[in-house]
Amino acid sequence: MDFYDKDLVSIRDLDRGQIEELLDLSERMIPYARGEKVKRALDSRILGNLFFEPSTRTKLSFESAAYRLGCDVIDVSEMSVTSMSKGETLADTIKMVDAYCDLIVLRHPHEGAARLAAKFSENPVVNAGDGAGSHPTQTLLDLFTMRRSKGSLDGLNVVLVGDLKYGRTVHSLAEALTMFGAKLTFVAPESLQMPADTFEHLKSRGCTPGKTDELDSVIGQADVLYVTRIQKERFPDPAEYQKVAGTYRISNAVLREAKSDMIVMHPLPRVDEILPEVDPTPHAKYFEQAFNGVPVRMAILCSILGGDI
Amino acid sequence: MDFYDKDLVSIRDLDRGQIEELLDLSERMIPYARGEKVKRALDSRILGNLFFEPSTRTKLSFESAAYRLGCDVIDVSEMSVTSMSKGETLADTIKMVDAYCDLIVLRHPHEGAARLAAKFSENPVVNAGDGAGSHPTQTLLDLFTMRRSKGSLDGLNVVLVGDLKYGRTVHSLAEALTMFGAKLTFVAPESLQMPADTFEHLKSRGCTPGKTDELDSVIGQADVLYVTRIQKERFPDPAEYQKVAGTYRISNAVLREAKSDMIVMHPLPRVDEILPEVDPTPHAKYFEQAFNGVPVRMAILCSILGGDI
Amino acid sequence: MDFYDKDLVSIRDLDRGQIEELLDLSERMIPYARGEKVKRALDSRILGNLFFEPSTRTKLSFESAAYRLGCDVIDVSEMSVTSMSKGETLADTIKMVDAYCDLIVLRHPHEGAARLAAKFSENPVVNAGDGAGSHPTQTLLDLFTMRRSKGSLDGLNVVLVGDLKYGRTVHSLAEALTMFGAKLTFVAPESLQMPADTFEHLKSRGCTPGKTDELDSVIGQADVLYVTRIQKERFPDPAEYQKVAGTYRISNAVLREAKSDMIVMHPLPRVDEILPEVDPTPHAKYFEQAFNGVPVRMAILCSILGGDI
Repeated sequence: MDFYDKDLVSIRDLDRGQIEELLDLSERMIPYARGEKVKRALDSRILGNLFFEPSTRTKLSFESAAYRLGCDVIDVSEMSVTSMSKGETLADTIKMVDAYCDLIVLRHPHEGAARLAAKFSENPVVNAGDGAGSHPTQTLLDLFTMRRSKGSLDGLNVVLVGDLKYGRTVHSLAEALTMFGAKLTFVAPESLQMPADTFEHLKSRGCTPGKTDELDSVIGQADVLYVTRIQKERFPDPAEYQKVAGTYRISNAVLREAKSDMIVMHPLPRVDEILPEVDPTPHAKYFEQAFNGVPVRMAILCSILGGDI
Repeated sequence: MDFYDKDLVSIRDLDRGQIEELLDLSERMIPYARGEKVKRALDSRILGNLFFEPSTRTKLSFESAAYRLGCDVIDVSEMSVTSMSKGETLADTIKMVDAYCDLIVLRHPHEGAARLAAKFSENPVVNAGDGAGSHPTQTLLDLFTMRRSKGSLDGLNVVLVGDLKYGRTVHSLAEALTMFGAKLTFVAPESLQMPADTFEHLKSRGCTPGKTDELDSVIGQADVLYVTRIQKERFPDPAEYQKVAGTYRISNAVLREAKSDMIVMHPLPRVDEILPEVDPTPHAKYFEQAFNGVPVRMAILCSILGGDI
Repeated sequence: MDFYDKDLVSIRDLDRGQIEELLDLSERMIPYARGEKVKRALDSRILGNLFFEPSTRTKLSFESAAYRLGCDVIDVSEMSVTSMSKGETLADTIKMVDAYCDLIVLRHPHEGAARLAAKFSENPVVNAGDGAGSHPTQTLLDLFTMRRSKGSLDGLNVVLVGDLKYGRTVHSLAEALTMFGAKLTFVAPESLQMPADTFEHLKSRGCTPGKTDELDSVIGQADVLYVTRIQKERFPDPAEYQKVAGTYRISNAVLREAKSDMIVMHPLPRVDEILPEVDPTPHAKYFEQAFNGVPVRMAILCSILGGDI
């Protein structure tokens, strides 16, 4: 029980063995996540959801994960608002929340907030995204989805497409994939390409990703196509946005070049990055990916709080 | 277990036998609804409350029903807001929610939304009101309240008074009552009378309701007086509203003409459609009616999710 | 089981023996409040949190207390908003909530609201603060914190400092302490001193508190220093606020005059009434005080709802 009473702040804190241990446990959680099996492994324990910015899906997914294990949830997000308006420090807010629960799930707009919270809190803290920082449970569920579909994470050919500059999800994911010898390709317009420092960091880990602005040229080799949303707000000119967004829109026509067992992932919500016509194809894994947030977060909660399943 | 894994979209989907089966089960739920008996018949199952418009009482009543059975609840209403603002489709939202729970309770401003959601969802959907459409759990709790008070639903003389034009509740209720051979009378000012198509539909089902704008003339025959709120916003002229509202205000004086065992119902909240002086009389059943939402919804949840009580 | 099915409206309703009984039970609740022991003593019971004004900490603390006992919680605060906007009376709102839960926790801006609610409700009502009225669970957790730290409540020397005029907390606390033969001293600027009628009431109970505006002169005798927040809004002149706030700011320098086992309490959130440098000293009990809200409220819920621990 490696994770017992530990914080989970960044995917960088985990090694390959620890990641695989969590994914194995996630696999065992699936029938419980579906409500097919019932065990109150965390009966009368309390999770505190402290969200300083909204992230409905992440919050709900943690709630669902907790309930499937008999763990209760208090939503302390309101405290983040009242506390700040009353001038309370983050340290004091964390210590308050600490009094009411056994584990804090923190979402915060500023990078480094989760590490700080972990310092102040006696109970373990799970980072549910802190600004440009890490979002390790998202990374774990992405890896879990790939492993379930492809059988193994080793040496996958992963193409990441869309907004790679601002999309926090893809930075952590790319980094984690290097542990498994992935071949990475980044597809984005120049203005939204992977930041140079992330790129350099990946190279220092022994992985030199490909870079292009043309999806067509690389889709044929992909085992996984990871699509992210391009936000209109990033473009000064709406016409420019339309052009770029159109270029990377995934349709059945685009997928004609892909391997038959290539999977398409997306952290959702999507707007029109992926056409609905793709949903019924065997490529589409984004809704399964959303569901996978539940067993993965169950595995994390159970490991940290010492539940027995 | 007729309802197992089924949607509940409209009261029209149920026949008389199915309604009676649900009401029988509701009866058995009463001691559990009061907390006098405890059985976690739906332990670790999760209900998702997806309300695209507020309806506090309906939402709370479903929550209470779930908790009495050991079922957890996630409030996914926030997702309805963030999803729409991000341009997500109803189909995508439903598929997301689907990943986090075992049953979706949907409230939506547009008629037909529940039927659509049921199509997209793998898990069963219970309609908690969709615009001018159906609100079957409200109808069932209304029927349950009548049956509990009067012993049987057969051949009841039911007078519906108030806003019969916009009050969705009364349309479904009237329709359901025709299955039990009810004699219906509609009391409303001409501008708020039952819509012609609903009236014709009732006739096609073998029931020709009476219509009048005078309560005095019909109250003496009633077994049930079902009162609904007349909303000020419906009237261009406040003075006109005052006049109409005053005409249908239920007081002890008005009830002097009623049978001693006639019951007064109201979906609540009331403003001044019924004077507080009526509350302590044996006629008043509206608070019991509110409570009845719990055992009836327990019966529905248990039937659909396969709980054993 | 003295409290079974009873309301808890004011600390004045309790005698010394009853207070000690609740504090003894709170002591037994501590391992359950920490999640170290598990017993679903209130399984499938439902608490209704009805907050007509925000009070995040009090609400969360009741939630946490309920969950530790297996009791579910519905947040009916939303109903307070929709009900009032629709013109519903408090009596009707209470009767609705009554239908959905087993116990109502009420927070209301107006003094006397809790007593009124208790009259309308069939289920027991716990007052979680009603305007200038009582907030008995806060008083009990304050007493509990003192007793845990000092071993006994008898004859404590308690210094209350800060805003004693508007701070409801200190009025009830001072009153309760007179039952235990406390020596009280009120430290505040003249404009924020304890109101004359509270002062007279305390005298009538056999306790004549000291009054001063200088903390230095009395801190050396204190067993307990109870600090409250001075709100900027109370002062027409910001400079005047700064001066007053500065005078009563608790630092390690200020505490140099204090007994080594004197404890510092604060209902939180603090802004800068107590410097963070005090936190690691053995004087600081305010975070423990926050936690104590959980076992004390567990004891209250268990006593009223008849849970067995």
